[in-house]
Amino acid sequence: MKQFISINDVADPKVLIEQAMLLKADPFAHQHLGKNKTLGLLFFNSSLRTRLSTQKAAQNLGMNVMVLNVTEDSWQIEFEDGAIMNAGTAEHITEAAGVISQYCDIIGVRTFAGLKNFEEDYSESVINKFITYATVPIISLESATLHPLQSLADAITIEEHSSKAKPNVVLTWAPHPRALPQAVGNSFAQWMNQLDVNLTITHPQGYALASGFTGNAKVTTNQDEALAQADFVYAKNWSAVEDYGKILSTDSKWMITPEKMALTNNAKFMHCLPVRRNVVVADAVIDSPNSLVLQQANNRVYSAQAVLKQMLEWNN
Amino acid sequence: MKQFISINDVADPKVLIEQAMLLKADPFAHQHLGKNKTLGLLFFNSSLRTRLSTQKAAQNLGMNVMVLNVTEDSWQIEFEDGAIMNAGTAEHITEAAGVISQYCDIIGVRTFAGLKNFEEDYSESVINKFITYATVPIISLESATLHPLQSLADAITIEEHSSKAKPNVVLTWAPHPRALPQAVGNSFAQWMNQLDVNLTITHPQGYALASGFTGNAKVTTNQDEALAQADFVYAKNWSAVEDYGKILSTDSKWMITPEKMALTNNAKFMHCLPVRRNVVVADAVIDSPNSLVLQQANNRVYSAQAVLKQMLEWNN
Amino acid sequence: MKQFISINDVADPKVLIEQAMLLKADPFAHQHLGKNKTLGLLFFNSSLRTRLSTQKAAQNLGMNVMVLNVTEDSWQIEFEDGAIMNAGTAEHITEAAGVISQYCDIIGVRTFAGLKNFEEDYSESVINKFITYATVPIISLESATLHPLQSLADAITIEEHSSKAKPNVVLTWAPHPRALPQAVGNSFAQWMNQLDVNLTITHPQGYALASGFTGNAKVTTNQDEALAQADFVYAKNWSAVEDYGKILSTDSKWMITPEKMALTNNAKFMHCLPVRRNVVVADAVIDSPNSLVLQQANNRVYSAQAVLKQMLEWNN
Repeated sequence: MKQFISINDVADPKVLIEQAMLLKADPFAHQHLGKNKTLGLLFFNSSLRTRLSTQKAAQNLGMNVMVLNVTEDSWQIEFEDGAIMNAGTAEHITEAAGVISQYCDIIGVRTFAGLKNFEEDYSESVINKFITYATVPIISLESATLHPLQSLADAITIEEHSSKAKPNVVLTWAPHPRALPQAVGNSFAQWMNQLDVNLTITHPQGYALASGFTGNAKVTTNQDEALAQADFVYAKNWSAVEDYGKILSTDSKWMITPEKMALTNNAKFMHCLPVRRNVVVADAVIDSPNSLVLQQANNRVYSAQAVLKQMLEWNN
Repeated sequence: MKQFISINDVADPKVLIEQAMLLKADPFAHQHLGKNKTLGLLFFNSSLRTRLSTQKAAQNLGMNVMVLNVTEDSWQIEFEDGAIMNAGTAEHITEAAGVISQYCDIIGVRTFAGLKNFEEDYSESVINKFITYATVPIISLESATLHPLQSLADAITIEEHSSKAKPNVVLTWAPHPRALPQAVGNSFAQWMNQLDVNLTITHPQGYALASGFTGNAKVTTNQDEALAQADFVYAKNWSAVEDYGKILSTDSKWMITPEKMALTNNAKFMHCLPVRRNVVVADAVIDSPNSLVLQQANNRVYSAQAVLKQMLEWNN
Repeated sequence: MKQFISINDVADPKVLIEQAMLLKADPFAHQHLGKNKTLGLLFFNSSLRTRLSTQKAAQNLGMNVMVLNVTEDSWQIEFEDGAIMNAGTAEHITEAAGVISQYCDIIGVRTFAGLKNFEEDYSESVINKFITYATVPIISLESATLHPLQSLADAITIEEHSSKAKPNVVLTWAPHPRALPQAVGNSFAQWMNQLDVNLTITHPQGYALASGFTGNAKVTTNQDEALAQADFVYAKNWSAVEDYGKILSTDSKWMITPEKMALTNNAKFMHCLPVRRNVVVADAVIDSPNSLVLQQANNRVYSAQAVLKQMLEWNN
């Protein structure tokens, strides 16, 4: 695998899920692969799960890891081609990516959406510049519009907990005090579309996700209707796409409560974390035995490890 | 050992001291124990010795280490149960501790006293939440009221440098420009109470430590009297307990000077570091051959290593 | 090697360059040397190449690495002897260096010039205090007046790309929006003076480097004249020495453009990075096949590795 930015970089998502589950069963079996190989993790934004689970995955494979908080530890990066760099930015992405490629065998990059300019975010200009100027494989640790390591972990989790050939999966918008990217929602939809599930997406008026990601999902603004017969309920906030980056609703009726879960087919509850308790989801739901949030987070290790393993093998 | 928050978690402090000294003599003898094990170090506060010595201890045992500056690197954590999280905190301790437990075999946490609310600090609510929600052993890297890795290192240092069956150990308050926690003082008293020493605590009026930690120590506000016949002088500032977190004195007469040391039985000088020179202690004392501050810091490696080793063995 | 602060610490610079090139050819051949050895990297300033390449070098040698952003992660350090520490600084260099020496076998320190006080910067008071109080070898990761790991990497790069017995090397000042240290310029001049090159230094009026570093170099304020017959053009900004730390010129005529490069003997272009594109150097130059900036950055690994290897051998 040469890059892992979206599901489109994956030859066969089902095979990748299977490989992740094999790694979970025997995490230390491939330590020869990573010997004397180095993973660089570059963070432009906060991270807990991604930061730790990706390090752990690399160590499971015998790799060394170097972590860089780009802005705090090093220099502010210029992404514009042809820029006359006489202001705040001290290093151009051309050099940054080119140099780090010489120190690392694989580079992971977290770079959230700015939520100010739809075209810029949805062109994935930042992570694409890394791909352009790096000479080693790039892994997205969440980019402007997608979070593929999370979606792969989510797919593993559904595979592990599904008792049906084709479960009903509902992605529901939930309220949140801050404007958040659409990356998790987009990415989850994109992955579910390629797996054996019936996907329904529900959100208030004005919160439609960009059509390129939603595929064949059923979309409705009636959350109760969407939840009926759900086997998995994936809650996540995102800000508006059309009125880009805006908060149009904080309607607490969209919070996932025990009453909402009672509408489902005894559904499992999912969220990528971090989650605002009693805003996105009621304590009684996330603390119930049906909550899979810790399992999802655990699978982040094997999601990252499966991707790293394919890259190390592709590298060789 | 399932947790290391205070001396009460230690089956036999003297055995632990002995084990630490054996590790110091042969630091790399147990690298099989840590193979494919990961230590996570979570810092809510600044650290030099703890950060580096605990990493070093883990590496001596063959462990991997992941370090997280919680607030800067990841998300602000909510500790209140039932909180409606629509303000500044983005992730609840339930998820934070639960998730990190899946990536780490042991978790170290540094979380200083807030010094605003006695009940909150002295209930050790933060580190106790980690213990509650983590599923792996927790090591205190200094919590609100105790600093057990430091006290264990101090105990090792006294053991190494004592020529008596029962030395006279004096814990003396010293001035400081900022309000500091009582953790080092509390913890030192607590450990000394369980070892073969005569402990005297001296401080100005109003600076009494909480009684639960001082045990059978002789307590006096007459520093000169306390220092007479001392074999070890441990200087440390702390803010007031009763008038909680307040600075009641910056009286430079409490600074440890050569004149003060002349009152002792040629005592060794101890401090946990970092230390304000010429405020807590005069240069001439800390730079004298009787100063053990570097030895104490060195023993932080073996203190941490002894605790990690017991946890790895308990884990297996 | 006991310390690596300037070329004066190197027994034979040509041998060190040769050793670095051997390491580049076979980076993992000496992993036994670093087993159970720890490199501590202390940053008082931003870093990308130094931070990552030095970690990588240490890992190539089998060492463990601990990285500390001194001010953010730990305590503000006092460098003045005899200071009464009742203000902002919490730990004295005596303890900081003494303690870290007990956890690390080698310590790297980055501490930029303050550019306020010439005497203070040019006495190298900060890194010299580390040398004084540390008990293990110290590596400069760029100090107030020198950047020897960069210069060694530059020397390797010139050695690799030179087709002449004695190439013409030109160090040229270039404009920059911020006041920068003279360290890279000083250090490059110092190294070139000991190698088989003809060194010319060119800068606008008022930007003369301190004479102790320029040695036998030809110095001119006529950039065009300097560039004639150049085989290597090393561009770098620095602030004034005499009018210390001041920006006297931002004259864009000093930027390295294709027109400037046309004056040379088809010269290679060099810069230590990070570089302000289209301020220091035009895109067309840095993006040309004659640009060696990525090769210089790559050689930072082997520059550091050669120094670490000598220190590990000296240590044993």
